[in-house]
Amino acid sequence: MKDRLFRQLDFIREIDKVKTIIRNSTLFCENRKENDAEHSWHICIMTMVLAEYTKDAFDPLRVMKMLLIHDLVEIDAGDIVVYNKTALNEEAERKAADRIFGILPLDQAKEFRVLWDEFEEKKTPDSRFAAAMDRLEPMLMNLAHKGEIWEKYGIRYEQVIQANKIISEVAPEIWGWLENVLYEHPYWTGKRQETGNA
Amino acid sequence: MKDRLFRQLDFIREIDKVKTIIRNSTLFCENRKENDAEHSWHICIMTMVLAEYTKDAFDPLRVMKMLLIHDLVEIDAGDIVVYNKTALNEEAERKAADRIFGILPLDQAKEFRVLWDEFEEKKTPDSRFAAAMDRLEPMLMNLAHKGEIWEKYGIRYEQVIQANKIISEVAPEIWGWLENVLYEHPYWTGKRQETGNA
Repeated sequence: MKDRLFRQLDFIREIDKVKTIIRNSTLFCENRKENDAEHSWHICIMTMVLAEYTKDAFDPLRVMKMLLIHDLVEIDAGDIVVYNKTALNEEAERKAADRIFGILPLDQAKEFRVLWDEFEEKKTPDSRFAAAMDRLEPMLMNLAHKGEIWEKYGIRYEQVIQANKIISEVAPEIWGWLENVLYEHPYWTGKRQETGNA
Repeated sequence: MKDRLFRQLDFIREIDKVKTIIRNSTLFCENRKENDAEHSWHICIMTMVLAEYTKDAFDPLRVMKMLLIHDLVEIDAGDIVVYNKTALNEEAERKAADRIFGILPLDQAKEFRVLWDEFEEKKTPDSRFAAAMDRLEPMLMNLAHKGEIWEKYGIRYEQVIQANKIISEVAPEIWGWLENVLYEHPYWTGKRQETGNA
């Protein structure tokens, strides 16, 4: 039994490293980049606040569990901006999941892995709602910072719409507002003026 | 309806400030202090991992909700080390709860306030389990850093036992391990040698 507790405590100490994985998003309130732990916390609260916007029945506890652990793999695999994900990166994340969840007692390692796999596949209502929150938070931050991510990675308008499609499917009313804000955002109106596309 | 969504989005942006509230605990993996968002994330995962150690039936979703929002009041009231809490600080936290939860639509403001009040009172199984996680994480961090909090605030051994009593009540098996680690921790064995209390 001690061995079980020690594995759990080792896991709790190991995942501390998520606090050092720096994302591309700048905080709303301060000029520094967000880390994965802060991001995971934020989208869990967003799940509490925005649950009413989906018509699909989902289990908020499972959504939160997915969101709490979804970025643990980045301890080994690093953070990749959504527009740049590759098969190689996905392989690195699977290896990371083996190692990090493997610190836990076997039953818990399995439980966490099932949640993580489900989140990665984004096919169930739980994982799709979780994915929508995971996309919405950096989108809101990027909007608050003049589209700095689009600028940095040279993203096209169509890529933004495509990468955030899950928000439109899961929460159409939020998307209705967001699509307008996006279209009228100074970054894109500026781009349209540059290229002459009205 | 737009007004409702705008209130929710304002709340989501406002609580970003929790990421700038710096605690006394040093990370396990790096020499910097933890912030409230990171702490809240960490104790939610601890709830997933350590749920089996309590005999009291509790609702993990409610526990996580409490943990996610329990430190939002510190945006206005600041972080106070557990050994230094006063009635004045508690009053500041209640005012902060009025303002911050008040950004939300009324029904959600009420729901969040009920959860926060319950957490503060620590009388129900949900709030007691949440409080045990909230105490255990900084304790583990402090143990990993040679008892730096005890040193900084001149804390006595009996104060440590008293402030963490809830862990012993909620999760006796974790406490059984922790009590031993505490008693044999170099910080306290050193203190006992200084004072001559074997």
